[in-house]
Amino acid sequence: MTTTAAPQEVKYIGKPGEVSFAKGLEGVIVAESVKSYVDGIAGRLIYHGIPIEVLAEKSTFEETAFLLLYDKLPTEDELDVYKMRLRQYREIPDEVYDFISRAGRRYNFHPMSVLRTAISMLAAFDDSAEEDTMIAHEREAIKLTSRIATVVAAIGRARKGLPPVHPRPDLSHAANFLYMLFGEEPDPFYARVMDVILILHADHECNASTFTVRAITSTLSDMYSAVVGGIAALKGPLHGGANEEVMHMLHEIGEVENAEAWVLRALARKKKIPGFGHRVYKTYDPRAHILKQYALEVTRRAGTEKWLRMAEVIERVMIERLGQKGIQPNVDFYSGIVMASMGIETALFTPIFAVGRIAGWVAHALEQRKDNRIYRPRFFYVGPEHMEYIPIEERG
Amino acid sequence: MTTTAAPQEVKYIGKPGEVSFAKGLEGVIVAESVKSYVDGIAGRLIYHGIPIEVLAEKSTFEETAFLLLYDKLPTEDELDVYKMRLRQYREIPDEVYDFISRAGRRYNFHPMSVLRTAISMLAAFDDSAEEDTMIAHEREAIKLTSRIATVVAAIGRARKGLPPVHPRPDLSHAANFLYMLFGEEPDPFYARVMDVILILHADHECNASTFTVRAITSTLSDMYSAVVGGIAALKGPLHGGANEEVMHMLHEIGEVENAEAWVLRALARKKKIPGFGHRVYKTYDPRAHILKQYALEVTRRAGTEKWLRMAEVIERVMIERLGQKGIQPNVDFYSGIVMASMGIETALFTPIFAVGRIAGWVAHALEQRKDNRIYRPRFFYVGPEHMEYIPIEERG
Ligand SMILES: CC(C)(COP(=O)(O)OP(=O)(O)OC[C@H]1O[C@@H](n2cnc3c(N)ncnc32)[C@H](O)[C@@H]1OP(=O)(O)O)[C@@H](O)C(=O)NCCC(=O)NCCS
Ligand SMILES: CC(C)(COP(=O)(O)OP(=O)(O)OC[C@H]1O[C@@H](n2cnc3c(N)ncnc32)[C@H](O)[C@@H]1OP(=O)(O)O)[C@@H](O)C(=O)NCCC(=O)NCCS
Repeated sequence: MTTTAAPQEVKYIGKPGEVSFAKGLEGVIVAESVKSYVDGIAGRLIYHGIPIEVLAEKSTFEETAFLLLYDKLPTEDELDVYKMRLRQYREIPDEVYDFISRAGRRYNFHPMSVLRTAISMLAAFDDSAEEDTMIAHEREAIKLTSRIATVVAAIGRARKGLPPVHPRPDLSHAANFLYMLFGEEPDPFYARVMDVILILHADHECNASTFTVRAITSTLSDMYSAVVGGIAALKGPLHGGANEEVMHMLHEIGEVENAEAWVLRALARKKKIPGFGHRVYKTYDPRAHILKQYALEVTRRAGTEKWLRMAEVIERVMIERLGQKGIQPNVDFYSGIVMASMGIETALFTPIFAVGRIAGWVAHALEQRKDNRIYRPRFFYVGPEHMEYIPIEERG
Repeated sequence: MTTTAAPQEVKYIGKPGEVSFAKGLEGVIVAESVKSYVDGIAGRLIYHGIPIEVLAEKSTFEETAFLLLYDKLPTEDELDVYKMRLRQYREIPDEVYDFISRAGRRYNFHPMSVLRTAISMLAAFDDSAEEDTMIAHEREAIKLTSRIATVVAAIGRARKGLPPVHPRPDLSHAANFLYMLFGEEPDPFYARVMDVILILHADHECNASTFTVRAITSTLSDMYSAVVGGIAALKGPLHGGANEEVMHMLHEIGEVENAEAWVLRALARKKKIPGFGHRVYKTYDPRAHILKQYALEVTRRAGTEKWLRMAEVIERVMIERLGQKGIQPNVDFYSGIVMASMGIETALFTPIFAVGRIAGWVAHALEQRKDNRIYRPRFFYVGPEHMEYIPIEERG
């Protein structure tokens, strides 16, 4: 006879170390999902069954975002409608532009903080932000996927003291983003590189920010709240913030011939090297492979081959030292080099990660709502079970 | 011989329903904590060993927030220093007041959205928001605990078209909050009621918003990002938003004699009754007990006994019908009646919940940092394993 302990019979109080649990929720299943799958052993990533390599080669950000949102590849008509909706939502209210330029100019303000605030503020200008129907949530999903690009481009300009460039309806999502950032229509090759960057970042199974988005949505909070939470989580250096750390590391190393010694010294001091390691991948991140290929061409065009050569040394040393342990380059390792070579400042790398990842965030928020239960786990309490409330005068 | 499957041998892909997992992370331990413990069977809640009833009777919000942050009751000197810090941080920048009055006046804007945006914006005016030391995180924790009260009071005034009332340094946290909200020094009884409301809401183990705060912090993101995420999660009607739903329900019911039939009808239509049920409590929420006692006195003073009588009918019917199943009143059931009787509009109930809960949020954020690992669980992927990328012209 087997008995199953009802949840209330499980103990959630005791001594430190008394129970074992999956720290960082490693390996814990939180929900079923049809969005994407990471095979950490084979180094494979699929979005709804399609390998990331195929999408990077053949798809566009718009089509990939559609795939994630609707769990199918669009027909031509469906894609036209979806693109039209994205285009129609591009413009943002003046008040949000104003906030961005003030924040960008006057304050020593982290771009991810500006982004978090501006997206939160967009809800103020959206009469339908609180509408609680699936159609409304889907509409907000598309709206935010579109507008976050406008916000990030405006942040990039504000940081240089430049006025925003308003979106153009005739360009693709990626090309329009570069247009708004630089104020001129991008070279088609760079537009395609940005498109690929957004595709590669669009989703990644249950990463920390997507998990946060789903936890917030599980209280039946709104889409803006969910996305704001995703931005808040992505900001951290253990997550999206790592791509900026990689660039800071390259600047600190300075020259190719310093790279090996620098890494060995950092490892000796038990430092984590940004752009390496992953909870799920124990092999080369397939996204890093693709970005490395692009880095070859982009650094050649930009004359920034030095960064790539430095990166190759770091990669070799890291794999020699830690490859056995499953520490390999992740998506953040080569994305910075590609973006920097395109003339994008380091502080915008994580915001651009968000411009891609939002496609996954909103898709997961809708998936969460379809079969929801509030995320309400437990702590194992290891504090005192009884503590007397001694009057303050008598406390020692 | 026993073998343990390494995480990589576990399958995270298959058919819907193929694996069982704890939906909503029910019962799953995510971390050890010394902050608070909920005994759902005995209906007991302790903050670091001290029963909530004792704190509600003897403590103040300031002392309780100190207890949660530092895991001890303060001496007189320690409490003086802590209170002084809270007081000194009360004022917020003009630009945030401006945003709040514009948002409150001009737009049909959810107060939790204004709160989320204003707190996010405060980071803009804080040169030390990105400082990454434990001392800095602790300082931001205290700053935000203090300032969120100013923000919520300003929101309450803006919604009435009134200018903000600046904080007064000579009042307690709760009294100053009521002063900023109403523009006059509160009656000491009401100041104490608000103090108790904040104490009761200050922490609650691994609730959805606290869990969100810890997930965001686990990426090593900043304190503002964590708190913004907490607000985003609290907003949902399954979490903090429930206290407002209770008030809407009472208004809809209208008269005591309608209450029973209304509830029975709602239950027949499988509706969830706000203010009832809890993941952990399978008995009366101890916080609801305390609030019910206060509701007696507050409704008598305010002449709003009708709400309380309605609530008592709803409670009786719910316990008759669903008590066996463990559905009992939770904290949100009586808090609304108390606040409404104090002249506080319904739309401010959830923001005020946040003014209390922030004490727990920031304490948990610091606890998370002390022994961190990124929260990165898994989905069980149930989408297609292989899907061909058919050229768009050929899609059916
Ligand atoms: C991504 C990351 C957060 C995954 O975290 P995790 O699954 O909790 O992994 P752990 O921190 O438990 O690491 C496991 C081991 O590998 C080591 N390790 C992991 N990443 C490392 C890195 N980038 N450099 C050096 N060592 C690393 C850890 O020190 C640990 O060693 P130990 O077993 O001797 O203690 C982690 O690899 C990391 O911090 N990487 C750098 C930041 C980064 O690039 N993030 C972006 C990810 S897309
Ligand atoms: C708090 C809450 C989200 C907990 O969620 P949970 O642990 O996932 O509980 P479940 O939704 O699985 O509920 C278990 C059962 O009780 C029922 N139930 C739970 N809360 C109920 C309520 N308020 N009214 C009626 N039935 C309720 C559920 O319908 C379910 O019934 P079933 O087994 O027949 O399907 C849930 O009780 C709820 O939605 N309450 C109303 C909102 C609220 O007051 N939230 C504030 C909490 S502080």
